[in-house]
Amino acid sequence: MPRRIKIAAPATVANLVCGFDILGLALEDPVDIMELEIGGAPGLRIRHIDDYGLPLEPERNVAGAALLALMEELPEIPGFTLTVDKRIKPGSGLGSSAASSAGAVVAANILLGKPFSGPDLVRFAMNGEKVASGVKHADNITPCIYGGVTLIRAIHPLDIVQLEAPPLHVTVVHPQIEVRTSDARQILRKEVQLKQAIRQWGNIAGLVAGFMKGDYDLIGRSLEDVIIEPVRSILIPGFNDVKQQCMEAGALGGGISGSGPSIFMLNRDEEKAHLMADIMRDVYSRIGIDHRIHVTRVNTEGVRILEQD
Amino acid sequence: MPRRIKIAAPATVANLVCGFDILGLALEDPVDIMELEIGGAPGLRIRHIDDYGLPLEPERNVAGAALLALMEELPEIPGFTLTVDKRIKPGSGLGSSAASSAGAVVAANILLGKPFSGPDLVRFAMNGEKVASGVKHADNITPCIYGGVTLIRAIHPLDIVQLEAPPLHVTVVHPQIEVRTSDARQILRKEVQLKQAIRQWGNIAGLVAGFMKGDYDLIGRSLEDVIIEPVRSILIPGFNDVKQQCMEAGALGGGISGSGPSIFMLNRDEEKAHLMADIMRDVYSRIGIDHRIHVTRVNTEGVRILEQD
Repeated sequence: MPRRIKIAAPATVANLVCGFDILGLALEDPVDIMELEIGGAPGLRIRHIDDYGLPLEPERNVAGAALLALMEELPEIPGFTLTVDKRIKPGSGLGSSAASSAGAVVAANILLGKPFSGPDLVRFAMNGEKVASGVKHADNITPCIYGGVTLIRAIHPLDIVQLEAPPLHVTVVHPQIEVRTSDARQILRKEVQLKQAIRQWGNIAGLVAGFMKGDYDLIGRSLEDVIIEPVRSILIPGFNDVKQQCMEAGALGGGISGSGPSIFMLNRDEEKAHLMADIMRDVYSRIGIDHRIHVTRVNTEGVRILEQD
Repeated sequence: MPRRIKIAAPATVANLVCGFDILGLALEDPVDIMELEIGGAPGLRIRHIDDYGLPLEPERNVAGAALLALMEELPEIPGFTLTVDKRIKPGSGLGSSAASSAGAVVAANILLGKPFSGPDLVRFAMNGEKVASGVKHADNITPCIYGGVTLIRAIHPLDIVQLEAPPLHVTVVHPQIEVRTSDARQILRKEVQLKQAIRQWGNIAGLVAGFMKGDYDLIGRSLEDVIIEPVRSILIPGFNDVKQQCMEAGALGGGISGSGPSIFMLNRDEEKAHLMADIMRDVYSRIGIDHRIHVTRVNTEGVRILEQD
């Protein structure tokens, strides 16, 4: 078994427009780079080589909390040294905390000889999400660990379903404004009209069928959110312009990534994905908001091993 | 082109537990038998050879209303003579009106040389549903016309998706009590908790994925309805006993067919389907309610041609 491993943990897009709290997909770019070494004194040591000033105490660090949950289920506590190079900006809505949590437990599982299953790893990593946002949600962690498009059918007990999907080119813009996950959750109404719920679940069913059939048109028609987006998009300046212009330019569809502020668009080909990037750049340059753009694809393997020895 | 056609229009199960208003499947049994002849004086003549005493004026007859909608889009009005042998009991929750409406327009389309598409036929047949229940719903008509398991992603504009599914054995019991579709709709709350809606759409996504993957266990886990069934099942005596005993005996899952009162159970094999029939018979015999039971399979072809000349 390797004593040291270096992995890349992918950014993820949760919700996928109509699939609030249940759907997500993994991206090729950006990724967090993490190195985990086993050995030395029992316990967990964390080092960050990025500039985000994140807490280093294991209990307060998202990767640390996830690893501690995993270590609790081991017969004896090993020594771990974790080095994190965070490249997915925290607060982007691209699953930054999930990448750290998921990457850490996937790495540890490999160093330990894979005693844990995928659902076990999701369960451990959810402890990192709790540190980050106060809620043990799994909709970023699951695609980060499994890759591709994932469905969380139910959370108690955890029921994860991997969905086949055709190749997709994804454009993501992260406007550099702050939207707190807790705020994005609080502004949602606790009740929804049955009529709207029916329209939403028609779209969810269509999106799942579209992915599995590889039917791009059906995917596009199903990427409609009548419940969450109309409320949350208010928190994201430029959202309506980006979305309208991208749809007019031929994006399959898209919307808010997770709880925002990032916005993503799915495309059939790379050329279109670059066109969406131009549109996003124009919109945010015009309204004077700093932004990062990623033109990427769906990551189909989840956390990737870069080196091990 | 044939001048006369005899068809079998299948009963259907709408909603499929968690897919309220969007999912449905067609059954091999029971079916309505209908004969349509083209020729004679322009206009529509209807005859019923069953004992249900249904109205014969085309505007008030469900098959008639559907055929009239089709005839309106023809360049010149032909003469049609329709003979209906209704075998799906009206008010059963098994799509009796949908079978008449759908069967009539599919038959007419064949006699006319198939000028109309599937979605056209659904649109025409919805006029029959309006006569039957006051609402132009498509969740029985669509599986009746297309066969198999169908999704109505959206109704405006109509977006129909056929879903692959593994072989399924279906047991249906029709307790002979009256539940009006309008009552079954009125007792539903107009608003649902977001939390419950999320659980419901997780199940819908799981059910669609389960059908398409041919994953019986996933189908079973996803057949859960936290929104409609808890309310509507109150109108159906014996429902809880039937459901609980069938689940304990190994049914994949099941629930109310359409708006009831029929109850259906999906099974992996025929033996189980007969076991569910025994359970249903016992429950309704014990509480003294007359009932009809069907042990059948999913019809995968929709309306079936029996004879044409």
